[in-house]
Amino acid sequence: MATQSLHLDEIIKNKLNPEQLKEYHRIHYGRIDHCELNLQDSTLEAGKLHDFEVAAYSFDAAKEVRNPRLVKVGLVQHSIVLPTTEPVEQQRNAVFNKVKKIIETAASEGVQILCLQEAWYMPFFLCTREKEEWKEFAESADKGPSFNFLSELAKKYNLVIISPILENDNGVWWNTAVVIDENGIYLGKHRKNHLPSVGSFSETAYYLPGNTGHPVFETKYAKIAINICYGRHHALNWLMFGLNGAEIVFNPAATISEFGESFWGIEARNAAIANSYYTCSLNRVGTEDFTTRNTQKDISRSYYGSSYITAPNGYRTPSLSRDRDGLLIVEMDLNLCRQVKDHWGFNMTARLDMYAKELQEVHPTPNPL
Amino acid sequence: MATQSLHLDEIIKNKLNPEQLKEYHRIHYGRIDHCELNLQDSTLEAGKLHDFEVAAYSFDAAKEVRNPRLVKVGLVQHSIVLPTTEPVEQQRNAVFNKVKKIIETAASEGVQILCLQEAWYMPFFLCTREKEEWKEFAESADKGPSFNFLSELAKKYNLVIISPILENDNGVWWNTAVVIDENGIYLGKHRKNHLPSVGSFSETAYYLPGNTGHPVFETKYAKIAINICYGRHHALNWLMFGLNGAEIVFNPAATISEFGESFWGIEARNAAIANSYYTCSLNRVGTEDFTTRNTQKDISRSYYGSSYITAPNGYRTPSLSRDRDGLLIVEMDLNLCRQVKDHWGFNMTARLDMYAKELQEVHPTPNPL
Repeated sequence: MATQSLHLDEIIKNKLNPEQLKEYHRIHYGRIDHCELNLQDSTLEAGKLHDFEVAAYSFDAAKEVRNPRLVKVGLVQHSIVLPTTEPVEQQRNAVFNKVKKIIETAASEGVQILCLQEAWYMPFFLCTREKEEWKEFAESADKGPSFNFLSELAKKYNLVIISPILENDNGVWWNTAVVIDENGIYLGKHRKNHLPSVGSFSETAYYLPGNTGHPVFETKYAKIAINICYGRHHALNWLMFGLNGAEIVFNPAATISEFGESFWGIEARNAAIANSYYTCSLNRVGTEDFTTRNTQKDISRSYYGSSYITAPNGYRTPSLSRDRDGLLIVEMDLNLCRQVKDHWGFNMTARLDMYAKELQEVHPTPNPL
Repeated sequence: MATQSLHLDEIIKNKLNPEQLKEYHRIHYGRIDHCELNLQDSTLEAGKLHDFEVAAYSFDAAKEVRNPRLVKVGLVQHSIVLPTTEPVEQQRNAVFNKVKKIIETAASEGVQILCLQEAWYMPFFLCTREKEEWKEFAESADKGPSFNFLSELAKKYNLVIISPILENDNGVWWNTAVVIDENGIYLGKHRKNHLPSVGSFSETAYYLPGNTGHPVFETKYAKIAINICYGRHHALNWLMFGLNGAEIVFNPAATISEFGESFWGIEARNAAIANSYYTCSLNRVGTEDFTTRNTQKDISRSYYGSSYITAPNGYRTPSLSRDRDGLLIVEMDLNLCRQVKDHWGFNMTARLDMYAKELQEVHPTPNPL
């Protein structure tokens, strides 16, 4: 088992003097102050009682002709609860019980849009390359157990919830993010566009590359989109969500240290800058142990958490921890998206017509004749 | 005037214990060791005598069926020498004299491909919005003073040199990177694709968006491309150089702290990861003062240097300083490009046909009828 992770920011905070710490924040976080928000006593108590971290920050925009458009976003990172050898329903319910307390805490802090991690209610069993014993985790997008569970909470607390699930659509599986509106109604879904085949991690054995394009969901609070996990490596995936109008793009993931932890702070942050929107990076924590049924092979995977949020001007929050359940809350002013666009002009200077043409030439659609 | 910059890495190196420092390097630089190369005594002496920093690192690749393909790359960051009120020819020659010593040092260390900063032989006068008094800085790509100066050095030392200039092509100006081969012969040029109009910084008043597409130059040592300055904000610009076969993409820039210094470590590094090639980020240093002729307005701009290089696996070197002339040398194994591609499979999972289609739909070529 891994030892307690070093919490780099905590160490550095204690080692540098105030002026040096500002420089560290300026270079690595984009601003000299993290702009922390105060939390209610009840939140701190809930975190202590149920053993999850809570952190809250804000991103302002300049005053302008529009009123501020403040939205409070919450990200939940968590481990599984029961051993992966327990019955599927019990495993799922144990996660439901844990996550419910975190969602209630988020709601009590005024969170309006809440995102859960990739395949949030199950162990990320895809590394086993087995299907049979896990198939009950695959569910309907708008009638399954996780939809029913979250729909009630969404309605009760007026929350928009993004629920990344393993979808079973008439026997075909997909890696899907479901969006539930603040009335608990199914708003739509997006299916993961890019699937990894890295080392033993072959998701193409389970489901197909997404067929939903790049939808942006107009919710009550903001225009949102979801770039699921490995899709963060593809700049064009981020780009299309931006061109379709997203103000916030969520990146729910399940990723381990060996798979590019040093990229984690780079890619979603780059996407926020390049596309003038907010990005929300969300990864699970904890160690998941499997023994494959057919080959009796032991597999152990540890996820490094480190969820964080970036603003369109490149400012970012600190990360949640590498190994604890956590709730990250950010109050953001959506006006910043257009302000940054108008300042940097990346949209004005994009020359998309040139690229549409060049991409077509470099990669023409195959002619079937 | 700015005070001496804080050198963050130096501070942190002195404050953290070895284990903590490894974690700092792992998270922020991708690897726990910088893999520094030894420098010759004569190099250290030259740096001391002519007041420039020299730093050297290496990036390895795994052993494989191909022999290692080692290339040594050098980046030169520097300030102007004379006040911007001096005659153009004298300003240019003063920079030539200074840079010559740095190039000779690079050659003595075995550098094979050397890149100079954007508009390297002149102050970045574009902020004045004036043209008349600066026009002698605009020159022919293959017959101008800087070509003649560098051609000789290239031939003498078997160097491929990338020379970003202000090009005058029959009265039309361009922001152009010229590539000179190891025999001193003009190999070709690339013109800056994306031009900023940020605040007072309107380059469109001087030259046009590039018309050279995304060329990759097959040099003796590597396949290289140049993404000039503001083009680093555009993911598609980076992408096309990769699709056209680049193994190293240089980003010569002239950028100031207020223009997104916290992006500097993000964008080129993200591009290296996304496209499985090396990226070389290069920015000038020093303060440049101007008084505009027509409006008698004083303008002062300070550039923050911080040049660095990223490998396709996301590992990066430390930055050169924020305020001193410097030479950054990296020995890199080009085999790493394909190794990383084969590992991550970003090229296999890119779905370019989907994006060519979506981009065409979102931004169709205007119909002139």
